[in-house]
Amino acid sequence: MEYIKNPMKIEEKSFEMIQDIIDEIRPGYEFKNNVEEKIIKRSIHTTADFEYLDILKISDKAVESIIDALKNNATVYTDTNMALSGINKKRLEALGCKYKCLVADEETAKLAKEKSITRSMAAVEIAAKEPGRKLFVFGNAPTALYKAMEMKNSNELELDAIVGVPVGFVGAAESKDELEKTEIPYIISKGRKGGSNLAAAIINAILYTM
Amino acid sequence: MEYIKNPMKIEEKSFEMIQDIIDEIRPGYEFKNNVEEKIIKRSIHTTADFEYLDILKISDKAVESIIDALKNNATVYTDTNMALSGINKKRLEALGCKYKCLVADEETAKLAKEKSITRSMAAVEIAAKEPGRKLFVFGNAPTALYKAMEMKNSNELELDAIVGVPVGFVGAAESKDELEKTEIPYIISKGRKGGSNLAAAIINAILYTM
Repeated sequence: MEYIKNPMKIEEKSFEMIQDIIDEIRPGYEFKNNVEEKIIKRSIHTTADFEYLDILKISDKAVESIIDALKNNATVYTDTNMALSGINKKRLEALGCKYKCLVADEETAKLAKEKSITRSMAAVEIAAKEPGRKLFVFGNAPTALYKAMEMKNSNELELDAIVGVPVGFVGAAESKDELEKTEIPYIISKGRKGGSNLAAAIINAILYTM
Repeated sequence: MEYIKNPMKIEEKSFEMIQDIIDEIRPGYEFKNNVEEKIIKRSIHTTADFEYLDILKISDKAVESIIDALKNNATVYTDTNMALSGINKKRLEALGCKYKCLVADEETAKLAKEKSITRSMAAVEIAAKEPGRKLFVFGNAPTALYKAMEMKNSNELELDAIVGVPVGFVGAAESKDELEKTEIPYIISKGRKGGSNLAAAIINAILYTM
């Protein structure tokens, strides 16, 4: 069986194919700018789903806010270990950024039980008390996204931006619609689609432009 | 903001909504059997992508082979840490199964460099030398899937089944087409779609039937 075995060539060829397919299925499609192009193409690379041409929404200040936070030793908080495992941690470390997923911690489980909330929500409450700049990267839990918006709104949480791409059927689309209405810099996927893999891909796309 | 905060209710409601949407968009759609239904619905739950109704292919002996391996202390080998992080490891441990992703190991990197192959391929070569029953769960690397087929074909590798759902543009669809032609029990996603999240969801769906 003949197949390409060079990882660099595989990635390069993949992005060429993505552009070719966009030209074919969406002639005249224009990316707003170079970074948005990289984010959307990496989202497609990760999912093979060209719907991201239409459903990925990036607020005006989102990229700038995320880059500024990453340049200032922000901590990246994810809502799943899966998202965390997909993020390029070497790049984050090189920037002096931290990264964590608090969802599976004992303290989080305890707080969630006490308050009868999801562990994803409890993780946001715990993150809020930590020092330093914060980026939230949610690919799974609408409840985490709602909690972050609530706490930001009541000045209990400072954050730089949210990559908010929870996937699913209960609350996912609605939570992202709510985020669009806030002043928080955001990157979202409209509707039900999204995921931990997508969340990681979006952060990686931005890291690779830095 | 009002939203459901009980994780059990969120999951239950999600699966109800998935069935409702199937009834709406694909009236008369029939699952072949109960386990296949659970696998496909969990795939949709993880991706919000109803294309999995059509592109998920489960070979006749796949579920039986996977369950038999899981009941006999098999090791689950994934091609990414992301897939591994999504798999329900408590369930695997309760069954006495092991799980690992060898891709980031030093030994794997060394072997890949020596042989000018991908780390995903090197990881399969290393797994092949380990004792015990084996399940391969690939969500990312067509090269891993090709390698496993090659080694199985030349009797260098014994395995029980492959969950082969690499996503992507270079080799992903082709590698899955090849797997369909083998005698290896398989679960695949036809075409470009797939992913680490999907790979984990498929194994979890089967674990939850046991």
